[in-house]
Amino acid sequence: MTTTSDTRAGEQGRSRPGRIIVSANPLNAEIPPDAWQHTITPTDQFYVRSHFAAPQADADSWSLQLSGALEGAREVTLAELRALPTRTLTATMECAGNDRLGFAPLCEGEPWGSGAVSTGVWTGVALRDLLARVRLRPTAVELLFTGADAGAPPDSSGALAFERSLPLAKALDPDTLLAFELNGAPLPHIHGGPLRLVVPGWYGMASVKWLTRITALEQPFAGYFQRERYVLVRPGEAERVPLGAMAVKSRITAPSEGATLPMGSHTVSGVAWSGSGVARVEVRVDHDGAWQAARLHDGPRYAWRRWEWTWEADEPGKHVLQVRATDEAGNTQPDVAAWNQFGYVNNAIQSVVVYIGEREAA
Amino acid sequence: MTTTSDTRAGEQGRSRPGRIIVSANPLNAEIPPDAWQHTITPTDQFYVRSHFAAPQADADSWSLQLSGALEGAREVTLAELRALPTRTLTATMECAGNDRLGFAPLCEGEPWGSGAVSTGVWTGVALRDLLARVRLRPTAVELLFTGADAGAPPDSSGALAFERSLPLAKALDPDTLLAFELNGAPLPHIHGGPLRLVVPGWYGMASVKWLTRITALEQPFAGYFQRERYVLVRPGEAERVPLGAMAVKSRITAPSEGATLPMGSHTVSGVAWSGSGVARVEVRVDHDGAWQAARLHDGPRYAWRRWEWTWEADEPGKHVLQVRATDEAGNTQPDVAAWNQFGYVNNAIQSVVVYIGEREAA
Repeated sequence: MTTTSDTRAGEQGRSRPGRIIVSANPLNAEIPPDAWQHTITPTDQFYVRSHFAAPQADADSWSLQLSGALEGAREVTLAELRALPTRTLTATMECAGNDRLGFAPLCEGEPWGSGAVSTGVWTGVALRDLLARVRLRPTAVELLFTGADAGAPPDSSGALAFERSLPLAKALDPDTLLAFELNGAPLPHIHGGPLRLVVPGWYGMASVKWLTRITALEQPFAGYFQRERYVLVRPGEAERVPLGAMAVKSRITAPSEGATLPMGSHTVSGVAWSGSGVARVEVRVDHDGAWQAARLHDGPRYAWRRWEWTWEADEPGKHVLQVRATDEAGNTQPDVAAWNQFGYVNNAIQSVVVYIGEREAA
Repeated sequence: MTTTSDTRAGEQGRSRPGRIIVSANPLNAEIPPDAWQHTITPTDQFYVRSHFAAPQADADSWSLQLSGALEGAREVTLAELRALPTRTLTATMECAGNDRLGFAPLCEGEPWGSGAVSTGVWTGVALRDLLARVRLRPTAVELLFTGADAGAPPDSSGALAFERSLPLAKALDPDTLLAFELNGAPLPHIHGGPLRLVVPGWYGMASVKWLTRITALEQPFAGYFQRERYVLVRPGEAERVPLGAMAVKSRITAPSEGATLPMGSHTVSGVAWSGSGVARVEVRVDHDGAWQAARLHDGPRYAWRRWEWTWEADEPGKHVLQVRATDEAGNTQPDVAAWNQFGYVNNAIQSVVVYIGEREAA
């Protein structure tokens, strides 16, 4: 399945707005503003992140190579994988570069607005269930995941595959999946089908698409996408912080930016997520207002959660709505996210401007 | 004339979009996005800044009191003022809090977007021509300008008038006007009519509306709007920097945010201004691009100047257009404006996101 046929399939009988293309080749695309109304992002609106041209990927002949520090290195077909017990979970996935446009100065990388985040229902096999069959050697320290997509990034010394490693603890988590379905249907090619890793709670770069090889490493992986990209490089700091779990973040989905509302009671609502659970969501109106607790809906562990808050709007004019979430470790979204060279982890508090009463007569 | 009647007058035969109300009482309102197409802002779209309720102001009985360190303290009627030689000049006026919403954390004060700036043709009498008739004493160091509007700001100790002072050098500049016309018609009440000070090149707070008194001071003025507001208060810095000349700034007015354009050649255009002249305007496409010189149109000394640049758009997808201006002293707009408590002087480089080619099919 190609991008084009995916889009065509999506056109059959749907009236949803399409994704917003950030770059056409390779395809990078955001969810449309309309998509925030869905707790589960429709597959044809799910954001797309590609590093290289999409590779050939035929489900019938697809196999996964297992090698390195394993007792039983081998090749696994999709049919063999599907014969293992399956696991389904709902998880929000966010690109580490989401909201990169919010950084000033502008950072290197794809100019993502706020739409490089989606929530899907993933079905696959727990990676640990497969690993139990091939048995890691005690010398293994990381697992390396290699996609079938490859190319030469502008600043690299040559062609390379998209590869990322995971520490064993995260790789062996029962929720780390070898996924072959999204939202109850075979995983579309543009989302990494027929097979991708899904690492719930982590930024999307960990969820390697078109997964073709797993290698058990006896040394930490130091490849391009592990050490040169997807690290926080802050001015004046020598440390390069590797990205992992998603930082706590929230979004107002109603009312929309620039909306004009009558005086009276309005429901302000949205979603909040983090790699490690959302404890609290608060809303503020204008600078002078106090932060007030929103009602936080329940939901699956790795999925964004809806929240809502009732606004008694009794003052005409322009107002600024802000939302902030706090994770279970007590981390609250910052007013300003720490600038870093590649523009990752922008979880700054969002401001939405709305008008109460009427604009001046036209 | 009241706000309401001004609006009503504006409605007679016009089809322009109205201002965007930031607060209704007192009236604070931005120019609508449509207004950027006009080099001279139409009067009924000119931004409005009020600190207190608009005062009674009848042109027939209006007079200006002159007092303090003067040889000839007296009262001047509008008719007497109009009998002096008049002067007309085009000047851009910007609220010091314009783009306050761009600061994070959010700052105290009116939630201005980008529309608290306008350009008008002002007609009046040079302040120096009036002062020549009343003669300053040699002990005078500043002139204090008092508006007829008064009230109690939330954090002040009581009621006070809107008052600002000017150093003698600026007050005696031949372009500092006692203005009674805007765009060739009597100055509307909401813009400070029948009489306001106009201090070209300075932030709008200096151009005192409903001007009712001028006092020659022998000590620098230390009132609320001089020392408590309209000063830059930066975290960790003891110095409170008083605001004066407008910092260099620019704006892309076409294409508009979120526009989708076909591949090919497009004109990117906008305006640039500063309190002390614009020397250079440059445009950049995406992070990797170099800054490229725009064509800068000529114009009156204190008015914003139009610029344009031709974009050969040959790559589909999402792009970020940025513009930056440099003033004649060599100051260039910053990527990030220095945060300050009240959110003044946000002249950070603007980014406009546009799409080349098509969004994904709906």
